[in-house]
Amino acid sequence: MREVAVIGIGGTKFGKHTERSITDLGVEACLKAIRDANIKPKDIETAYAGNFAQWEWGQGVFIGQVVLRELGITRIPITRVENGCATGSCAFREAWFKIAAGACDTALAFGVEQMTVADSSKMLNMGSGRQYVERGGDMGFSAPGIFALMARRHMAEFGTTREQLAMVAVKNRKYGALNPDAQLPDTVTLEDVLNARMICDPLTLPQCCPRGDGAAAVVLTTKELARKYTSTPVYVAASVQFSGAYPHDQSYTFFDPDVRGAKAAYEMAGLGPEDLDLAEVHDCFSMAEIIHYEDLGFCEKGEGGRFVEEGHADIGGKVPVNTSGGLLSKGHVIGATGISQIIEVVRQLRGQAGQRQVEGAKVGLQHNGGGFVHTDTACSVINIFKT
Amino acid sequence: MREVAVIGIGGTKFGKHTERSITDLGVEACLKAIRDANIKPKDIETAYAGNFAQWEWGQGVFIGQVVLRELGITRIPITRVENGCATGSCAFREAWFKIAAGACDTALAFGVEQMTVADSSKMLNMGSGRQYVERGGDMGFSAPGIFALMARRHMAEFGTTREQLAMVAVKNRKYGALNPDAQLPDTVTLEDVLNARMICDPLTLPQCCPRGDGAAAVVLTTKELARKYTSTPVYVAASVQFSGAYPHDQSYTFFDPDVRGAKAAYEMAGLGPEDLDLAEVHDCFSMAEIIHYEDLGFCEKGEGGRFVEEGHADIGGKVPVNTSGGLLSKGHVIGATGISQIIEVVRQLRGQAGQRQVEGAKVGLQHNGGGFVHTDTACSVINIFKT
Repeated sequence: MREVAVIGIGGTKFGKHTERSITDLGVEACLKAIRDANIKPKDIETAYAGNFAQWEWGQGVFIGQVVLRELGITRIPITRVENGCATGSCAFREAWFKIAAGACDTALAFGVEQMTVADSSKMLNMGSGRQYVERGGDMGFSAPGIFALMARRHMAEFGTTREQLAMVAVKNRKYGALNPDAQLPDTVTLEDVLNARMICDPLTLPQCCPRGDGAAAVVLTTKELARKYTSTPVYVAASVQFSGAYPHDQSYTFFDPDVRGAKAAYEMAGLGPEDLDLAEVHDCFSMAEIIHYEDLGFCEKGEGGRFVEEGHADIGGKVPVNTSGGLLSKGHVIGATGISQIIEVVRQLRGQAGQRQVEGAKVGLQHNGGGFVHTDTACSVINIFKT
Repeated sequence: MREVAVIGIGGTKFGKHTERSITDLGVEACLKAIRDANIKPKDIETAYAGNFAQWEWGQGVFIGQVVLRELGITRIPITRVENGCATGSCAFREAWFKIAAGACDTALAFGVEQMTVADSSKMLNMGSGRQYVERGGDMGFSAPGIFALMARRHMAEFGTTREQLAMVAVKNRKYGALNPDAQLPDTVTLEDVLNARMICDPLTLPQCCPRGDGAAAVVLTTKELARKYTSTPVYVAASVQFSGAYPHDQSYTFFDPDVRGAKAAYEMAGLGPEDLDLAEVHDCFSMAEIIHYEDLGFCEKGEGGRFVEEGHADIGGKVPVNTSGGLLSKGHVIGATGISQIIEVVRQLRGQAGQRQVEGAKVGLQHNGGGFVHTDTACSVINIFKT
């Protein structure tokens, strides 16, 4: 397996882009990434597009070809992948593997979604398990419902508090306010979060990520070529993907594919959680981030609430988490989310994160998960990057 | 790159399966392929699912995990891919490459679609270019329209006749009647085809493939493991994928990615069209098959009409084409089509094709294309198999 570097990153601002086309969003991200990589469109030898389920038009079919022809990228293999909320990261992984295995030298991975142009609630209800996927029968759970249930269990089992849960949102909105691409520009106080509209007890509105429109793209190449194009290559130290197990192998206080994925990723990278300078994790709800601290080994099981309360997830703490603002600030733009997380890690490892820079960051982890509400349909991707 | 073998094949009958779920269709195909491979579900290390755009439920999201959990296949990497009408073949290619590159030893690729349960005309109109994909504006072309236009051009340029076009349907229905998995069980005469309802002049109804529901699956493994499981392994001699070019690089009498793809595939396999014992090609319309003869090098440019008329595409001819009955008999079950073509090639190379067996078949080509109506969003996959 060859070493692979990320040499180009680019994304749109996440938010409402109802006046633009999904193609236009994808083109903006890809063009920025190609320019950032200092390459030409013709240098791209293969491409993967991540798109979950586009509502308004052709359900995302041929989205890769449709976007890339606008940049003069034709003729090469272009494939769309989908894996629920982990869609973007799966597009990245396929591109990474093609280079690592020697099938090509330079590849593009992008993700795009435009969720505000239509009523996406039907899809989200199905994707999140509220409706039985095939026959539309009611299953009783929305995504906030399942994460609230997990929060209740975590509170009962480990003494996690409402305040600790709320602190995840306070932290992520603090960093999100420093990220011009984030959807929510404002900081919130602990009181704001605790007193906000209750969505599903104990999760209030700021503890539930918004949806949005947007795109994110990265250019990858070999270690050798990376040196030609950039003085700040960021290398892929590990990339793993796992699906979930059956519910009986799972409790509601951890995510089984994350626990297995973290172990495999650290082994592949020859690194441990103690080596991480920062992490971007899938904070679709505040509760999720606390579980990720534990599953990814940032702290012991049950200690996630204290981890955020004691500032260990802040810049300056043990593992700064979601310095981009996370999904709670940026919004969850399903197909693009994973790649936008990768962009933040690369930005940090390049030292280009501005006011939210983690000084001297050399190793970063990115975690993107999907389908956790059905444990056996879940998908987790964990990538570790290093300078 | 390691040599990879197909050791298991399985599919449902194609047709109307409105009483079954899409999961059930996928499970049947995968279970048959796993049993045929003489392996256990736990031997599968990675899986790719092909699904174009599922209408009734969650647009196909997590279709891989949803199907495979029913077979006890969890925890492993499972990813859905989509590439228009070439979706199934792209799922196959990703699985093949993972084994070829050493990421795993045994993988499953399947495709599934259930097109009759809902009005799929909107999707097909968009996928085929009748409507502008993003804004729903009318573009004037349905899929029959574009292939009829190509037929007119081919007739004008090369003297191809209505009778020659109709002969493709006669041939494919003749073989389809011998394939119990095909949707249309009847043979048709030349007069039947010529006198059938005109869909888009010169293409009559039997020259346009029906849609349908169904699934198809294959199990792949390394050359070494294949010997353990089966006495009839079929090896992947070549696998290539290309996207289309801009319209100005294209005429309406050939498919640019097929011409490039065939050249690359023959080079990769170290074989030429003269070595082929049979081929399964994407006969969505009779016209398409005639162009494929030419693009894939079975005959010279412009000779496609005569190729079928003189019986060269029949069993006993130069290159027997679509002995499965092709899309014209089986129906186009978008996500499953490519893998069902692979199943026929494998069946022939194993000597298990019954009454439609090509005696002593040792080399077979499979061609699956999508999006040809927009030349720049097309995707072609060409795989060559050998005993």
